Amino acid sequence: MNCNVPTDIVFSFTGFAMRGGHTDTHHDGWGIAFFEGAGVRHFVDHQAAIASPVAELIKHYPIKSTNVIAHIRKATQGRVALENCHPFVRELWGRYWVFAHNGDLKDFAPVLDGSYRPVGCTDSERAFCYLLQQLQARFGAVPPSRGELHAALGGIVAGIAAHGTFNMLLSSGTELFAHCSTNLFYVVRQHPFVTAKLSDEDVSVDFSQVTTPDDRVAVIVTQPLTTNEIWTAFLPGELKLFVDGWPEPAPIA
Amino acid sequence: MNCNVPTDIVFSFTGFAMRGGHTDTHHDGWGIAFFEGAGVRHFVDHQAAIASPVAELIKHYPIKSTNVIAHIRKATQGRVALENCHPFVRELWGRYWVFAHNGDLKDFAPVLDGSYRPVGCTDSERAFCYLLQQLQARFGAVPPSRGELHAALGGIVAGIAAHGTFNMLLSSGTELFAHCSTNLFYVVRQHPFVTAKLSDEDVSVDFSQVTTPDDRVAVIVTQPLTTNEIWTAFLPGELKLFVDGWPEPAPIA
Repeated sequence: MNCNVPTDIVFSFTGFAMRGGHTDTHHDGWGIAFFEGAGVRHFVDHQAAIASPVAELIKHYPIKSTNVIAHIRKATQGRVALENCHPFVRELWGRYWVFAHNGDLKDFAPVLDGSYRPVGCTDSERAFCYLLQQLQARFGAVPPSRGELHAALGGIVAGIAAHGTFNMLLSSGTELFAHCSTNLFYVVRQHPFVTAKLSDEDVSVDFSQVTTPDDRVAVIVTQPLTTNEIWTAFLPGELKLFVDGWPEPAPIA
Repeated sequence: MNCNVPTDIVFSFTGFAMRGGHTDTHHDGWGIAFFEGAGVRHFVDHQAAIASPVAELIKHYPIKSTNVIAHIRKATQGRVALENCHPFVRELWGRYWVFAHNGDLKDFAPVLDGSYRPVGCTDSERAFCYLLQQLQARFGAVPPSRGELHAALGGIVAGIAAHGTFNMLLSSGTELFAHCSTNLFYVVRQHPFVTAKLSDEDVSVDFSQVTTPDDRVAVIVTQPLTTNEIWTAFLPGELKLFVDGWPEPAPIA
């Protein structure tokens, strides 16, 4: 989720969490990270989301954030363990970066120089460490502009995606990058707001009752969360940048 | 807390959390990190611990861990914000490191080379980044032995502590280092276990009912948590290493 005003994710998370063992088979852990200013609240659990006391907390505690990344895991590489749960968090340029991956990478063994090393044993965390290492090597101590970052990530992400399926989300608190290999959709919720109905549970919310006309919220998912909103599919290979709840145009190469 | 078997901290946390705005004035946020294997559960909140829904979760959800670091904050440097809440987490040598600081550092502005940079604006996070940078510079890509690490940390920590008050805790999941400038105490709970009574709330627990004779738990605090256990005071300038619930002898210099 990427938005222009701090928004709670209780509604979307309620449907999403059902896929962690109930309406889908992603029961090998889950996690969610909320940016609040420069800080991050990071919750991970190796239990299925539907059985997790921490997931219950999130469903009832409206944490407001402009950038949230959540993940439910079906283990493909790496055992079921806390250190293998997404999202992963690292620091670069004095900002936290949050990353989650859906998919599977084959024969992906990049040289890691030690600046970022995986703690667990997933292809995903390896890809995240490699990605940050490449950004640091490319730009050194000086953080790039948003356009430079978007362009550089395009190259790095394409290189990783050549190893398999790499649907991924990456945020450093203001912008949210989303890359599609196979499955990624987004919706922008804005005025005039409608009543949305979850696909995974019999819950609806009338967003017009909980928003102002200036609010804008982009939700990016591997599978649409609601049955009565129009979700836009990403193209395979597309890397989109969301800022203030809106997709930015692609950078000029 | 450092122990030889995964132990829940519900009892000690219940007393500790009362100091976050109730029996003490540390109401500018709080945090706690639990190691589970190589993974970390990290909870931070800029709200006072006594008013925090997340603290309520921790008080009732028995997360079992062999290494836990918790902190309640009284802001001395850095505003009340999520990014300034301890403990802080970073990765070095493919392990997470968790750090919390009690005290205040003056004129502490070390040169940071960019490998670790503070996200917030506390003297504490700056000290943590500097400490990890020095370890990485000293040992490079190869993690040192525990004895080498203890000896190296002794020098780094003494240099930081020369700038003011530096009571601190540091763990990478197996060992826990504790440095005292002014206030630090520890107790080792082991067989035969007694009934302990919290200082901050009218709660007791008979540890013999919830332990086995082989369990050993060290609890290290800035102020003793119970009224009927014998807490050992650290000496000023002392850096102790705890492993499996027990203080190790100091390294030979």
